[in-house]
Amino acid sequence: MNTPANRQIILAERPRYIVPTASIFKLGSAPMPQIEEGQVLLRTLWLAMESTLYARVQRVTAIQRDPIKLKDAMVGSAVGRVVESKHPRFKVGDLASGLWNWADFAAVKGERLRNLDFGPQKPSYALGPYGLPGFAAYIALDTLAPPQAGETVVVGTALGSLGHLAGQIAKLKGCRVVGIAGSAERCQLAVEKAGFDVCVNREAEDFEAQLKAACGKGVDVYVETLGGRALDAVVPLMNTGARIAAVGQMATPHFGEALARGRTQNTMNFMSEIIARRLSVRGLVASDHVQGRVKVFHQQMKAWLDEGRIKPMEDVVAGLENAPDAFQGVFEGRNRGTRLVKVAD
Amino acid sequence: MNTPANRQIILAERPRYIVPTASIFKLGSAPMPQIEEGQVLLRTLWLAMESTLYARVQRVTAIQRDPIKLKDAMVGSAVGRVVESKHPRFKVGDLASGLWNWADFAAVKGERLRNLDFGPQKPSYALGPYGLPGFAAYIALDTLAPPQAGETVVVGTALGSLGHLAGQIAKLKGCRVVGIAGSAERCQLAVEKAGFDVCVNREAEDFEAQLKAACGKGVDVYVETLGGRALDAVVPLMNTGARIAAVGQMATPHFGEALARGRTQNTMNFMSEIIARRLSVRGLVASDHVQGRVKVFHQQMKAWLDEGRIKPMEDVVAGLENAPDAFQGVFEGRNRGTRLVKVAD
Repeated sequence: MNTPANRQIILAERPRYIVPTASIFKLGSAPMPQIEEGQVLLRTLWLAMESTLYARVQRVTAIQRDPIKLKDAMVGSAVGRVVESKHPRFKVGDLASGLWNWADFAAVKGERLRNLDFGPQKPSYALGPYGLPGFAAYIALDTLAPPQAGETVVVGTALGSLGHLAGQIAKLKGCRVVGIAGSAERCQLAVEKAGFDVCVNREAEDFEAQLKAACGKGVDVYVETLGGRALDAVVPLMNTGARIAAVGQMATPHFGEALARGRTQNTMNFMSEIIARRLSVRGLVASDHVQGRVKVFHQQMKAWLDEGRIKPMEDVVAGLENAPDAFQGVFEGRNRGTRLVKVAD
Repeated sequence: MNTPANRQIILAERPRYIVPTASIFKLGSAPMPQIEEGQVLLRTLWLAMESTLYARVQRVTAIQRDPIKLKDAMVGSAVGRVVESKHPRFKVGDLASGLWNWADFAAVKGERLRNLDFGPQKPSYALGPYGLPGFAAYIALDTLAPPQAGETVVVGTALGSLGHLAGQIAKLKGCRVVGIAGSAERCQLAVEKAGFDVCVNREAEDFEAQLKAACGKGVDVYVETLGGRALDAVVPLMNTGARIAAVGQMATPHFGEALARGRTQNTMNFMSEIIARRLSVRGLVASDHVQGRVKVFHQQMKAWLDEGRIKPMEDVVAGLENAPDAFQGVFEGRNRGTRLVKVAD
């Protein structure tokens, strides 16, 4: 008897262009994984199309962690149902989240999985509000760049997986929240669906003037996910002692935006501004903070979701075979909230 | 009877070149100032040649505060003796420090002066260890970028007014302290006189390699006063969670160093490093922190000086008329410690 096949998305080549296109992946097939002692076999239900996965497919750089080898399966955050278990913490039928192959089934060490027995409102929320996007938004605004009530918070990618949650968390903290997004339509959604007070289109010719008008009292906190023209526009508006949580750089050349020639685009000018405005700039990698913080975060997020005070936006694409296109779309600014691939019910 | 004349240094023109040359100043004369109620007449004893004064003479920029008008007297940190007082907190013979004209005599509001009745070991110390350079070094290493014992601290301008004190404070905190200076001779002085464990010449062809060798365990804290090639060399050595106190940019083009084309010289790359290395970068303007902190700092610095644990380096130039040359020298890296002009005994 043949082992049943397990469909998976393979990294076929490194990105040829700056944006990682769908063509770097191929749909492949592998034998069904067999689990060893301590492992769990999972039926993949959901995959998160995270922009940070770019670092795993690109050519090796100084800051790259765990690059994926060519011909190997792509790996990312996922939610699945346990179909077989050799780990005491998991039984068949349990929901779990973790990092595993973009595949129908995966064998994962139980110790590297999170049991979703805390009662998430939806299993997919483990990849959004309860996942790294929600946790990063929480840490950014709780620890790295905490705002006071009444302050103005700018969020770089208002409809991003992290951004749309950061905006809502900042609203809960009593702030005026200004989003930045890549089109007028996306700006409208950010206001209507994600509760931003105002959202400014960074593709508009008068983006800088619009942003200035939207931040009448200056900017106190910037959740920086863009770089480029957006950073350039925000810094001159920052108040003395303002804080930047540096989370990503979605508007850098890999995103197709030419490097701006503005005032903060060389480090000399940026450092001048950091000194003159007494800025604090802190780099965030959310996984650093999980230890010791994640329980309180869970309780807080669960309460916010139960009370309807945070409304996650999920942007669902159906079918494992469509993951490559869904991933490319994130880098083209096509996602509206957390982009997920639904692999199975 | 004529009022006696008061010599003063006038700002005759804005800098024509990137480095502020002595030629922008002229020695002039004004009537002896008459004091009003609440004012004090001071005989200037010491003037501090601070690089930050550059912001007051250059053309108006976004970050400039209180520019000095052409034909007005230059203003800077000074120590003087009270020769006449219409302020209750000062009597004739008292020593005071504050910000006043580069002139033999100055009329200053008493409320803007500091009475040096706390017993500084030398009056000039009010401009070095007890002044903004010492206070900035203290705040940088106490609040903005605090090191732990055993960590590696890099100080950008090892023989600078702030740098030579920052190095000694970091040593007192039990750190390995690596300086950066502009010549082999200055590096030698930094080790012999200011107690740096090692000091690297940023003009050396293999500066980057030398710095790397000097920081075998990576860099945990960087007191950043340079920008340019130095920042470029330090950032790749920074450990996860390292801290930068951004204090100045002495190696930027106004200092004659061409803008490097290295990895951190555009903000996009710098932000990548900030995220990947989870850096904290905080801008320091020491005067922000005076309120509430200065008393504890005073006591601490007084004890360190009394115990001989901090040895200030003073670089004295005699004569008010020589202030312009002495000032230019700071931007040419000629000072060894705090550069002071001695105006009177």
